[in-house]
Amino acid sequence: MSNPKMPIPHHISQEAQDFLTPAITTAEHDPAPQSTEEWLSFVEASNANYAPFVEAVTSSPDVTIEKTIIAGVTVRIITPKTLPENKKDKILVNLHGGGYVMLGGDQSIMEAVGMALAGQFKVISVDYRMPPHHPFPAAVDDGLAVYQSLLTEYGAENIGLFGASAGGGLSAAVTLQARDQGLPMPACLALNTPWSDLNKIGDSYFSNHGVDPVLSSYDGWLGHMADIYAGEAGFYHPLVSPVYADYSTGFPPSILITGTRDLLLSCTVRLHRRLREANIEAELHVFEAMWHGFMAMPEGQQANQETIHFFEKHFKL
Amino acid sequence: MSNPKMPIPHHISQEAQDFLTPAITTAEHDPAPQSTEEWLSFVEASNANYAPFVEAVTSSPDVTIEKTIIAGVTVRIITPKTLPENKKDKILVNLHGGGYVMLGGDQSIMEAVGMALAGQFKVISVDYRMPPHHPFPAAVDDGLAVYQSLLTEYGAENIGLFGASAGGGLSAAVTLQARDQGLPMPACLALNTPWSDLNKIGDSYFSNHGVDPVLSSYDGWLGHMADIYAGEAGFYHPLVSPVYADYSTGFPPSILITGTRDLLLSCTVRLHRRLREANIEAELHVFEAMWHGFMAMPEGQQANQETIHFFEKHFKL
Repeated sequence: MSNPKMPIPHHISQEAQDFLTPAITTAEHDPAPQSTEEWLSFVEASNANYAPFVEAVTSSPDVTIEKTIIAGVTVRIITPKTLPENKKDKILVNLHGGGYVMLGGDQSIMEAVGMALAGQFKVISVDYRMPPHHPFPAAVDDGLAVYQSLLTEYGAENIGLFGASAGGGLSAAVTLQARDQGLPMPACLALNTPWSDLNKIGDSYFSNHGVDPVLSSYDGWLGHMADIYAGEAGFYHPLVSPVYADYSTGFPPSILITGTRDLLLSCTVRLHRRLREANIEAELHVFEAMWHGFMAMPEGQQANQETIHFFEKHFKL
Repeated sequence: MSNPKMPIPHHISQEAQDFLTPAITTAEHDPAPQSTEEWLSFVEASNANYAPFVEAVTSSPDVTIEKTIIAGVTVRIITPKTLPENKKDKILVNLHGGGYVMLGGDQSIMEAVGMALAGQFKVISVDYRMPPHHPFPAAVDDGLAVYQSLLTEYGAENIGLFGASAGGGLSAAVTLQARDQGLPMPACLALNTPWSDLNKIGDSYFSNHGVDPVLSSYDGWLGHMADIYAGEAGFYHPLVSPVYADYSTGFPPSILITGTRDLLLSCTVRLHRRLREANIEAELHVFEAMWHGFMAMPEGQQANQETIHFFEKHFKL
């Protein structure tokens, strides 16, 4: 009776209990897209799923969303209507999640709007280029170009980066690349369930297979997305899988968030250890019974508050 | 193919890989001791297992070990031969692990000697009373009596508490009881894989059943130890299961340590969240592929270094 399915705990929020109630299906046997055309259809279907949510937040009276281009990269600038005076010279850069393949275009604003509203920060959401047309390093190049452009306008000490899942890995990669090019480091980073190892290496790829209700398996789409993103660079390239990067020459203070049912629990705690081994200030928060990207739950609001508190501390607010 | 057994990762230390190699057996079908006599024989057999190790550390030229009585409680004072000048007025109190039943007597010094050597601290190891003769609250009473006595000699700001497993839960319980009796709080706590919930509640009691090579199952001895320790107080008493305590009226800064294969991973991260919800300074460290009390591994030395760094910071050294 090894590893019986975990019961749903009564001490988590009712919303989380409800979310965990349906049976979890793993995507391992689903046919992954095989051609560029099939991938584009796959992405289109995913975007359609999120369209109503995106439409709702876009019409929120509490934020303005401006689509523009910075350093050749499409971005959306999300500004809360009630931007506090002491945050007017601060900027957060969001690199969205979606396995390096999904959630581009209009869908890229979702995490950014959430943080702009909860934290009352101005946020720039980077609509970085993605596979199937643009594999690694296009996403890193785009993120770096935007960061470099903001350095002049804001100064590194007033910039924070954040991202979830692929966007968490990408936030680390952009920062590493900036460091290695001699650019000043941002004030801090928030890495929410970062995809730090694109290899299927890490206990939680196994222990939370069929347990995580959102990212149920590496063996379906996820592994295929890793393939078309990394391309010839391979999964051990430190900007593809930042768990393999060298942190000894410096990295900004970072907050990392995950849950005990997160398929990327191990990706998160391994990256946290790498930072600590290099004596980088790094906070870890693991939420009981929570899964990959549980931000819509009440527990997600707690996680957001930890992140906002971390940004404010490192912005010296 | 849900939850296939986790492979042994190549990136952890060779010692840890070797430790994880043998097949893991769960204790759930082993007959637990049923009578006081059977429990005492069980404890005696456990002590005999550790005797050679205890003899080796006791004869170490690097520490002195003095057995004495403080406030009616048997303790052992471990002093490193090279106690640094700036640590002479500091004292760490260790509440040993062993499921509230095992590792008393001469065996109680093991964690304390490790910390005295690694951290160059003077450590008082509390040989608190345990079941089958002395259930809850004897252990809390003994820990509190020693702490209260040290307050006069050292001052709260020069005292740190630490413990692993049951000793982690007990360290929290003693601190809560001290707080509620109006005593000043110690400088900080180190809670290594604390047994914060004696109920079988928490994802890792299920996900790491048969996975943790040290504490393989709740369903064997562990649950029975919970029974004979808690007695009539029950598992929801906040000093029995400190995850149910109220932290809103204050608690010292705490560092918590666990691993992804730890049966008490959820106990650890849940207690961390309870502290953070009350805005208590609390650091969490989760070590990939590590199990319940992995301190003998190279990864354990890293964990020890985090703990020592935390003590030194809060002692303002």
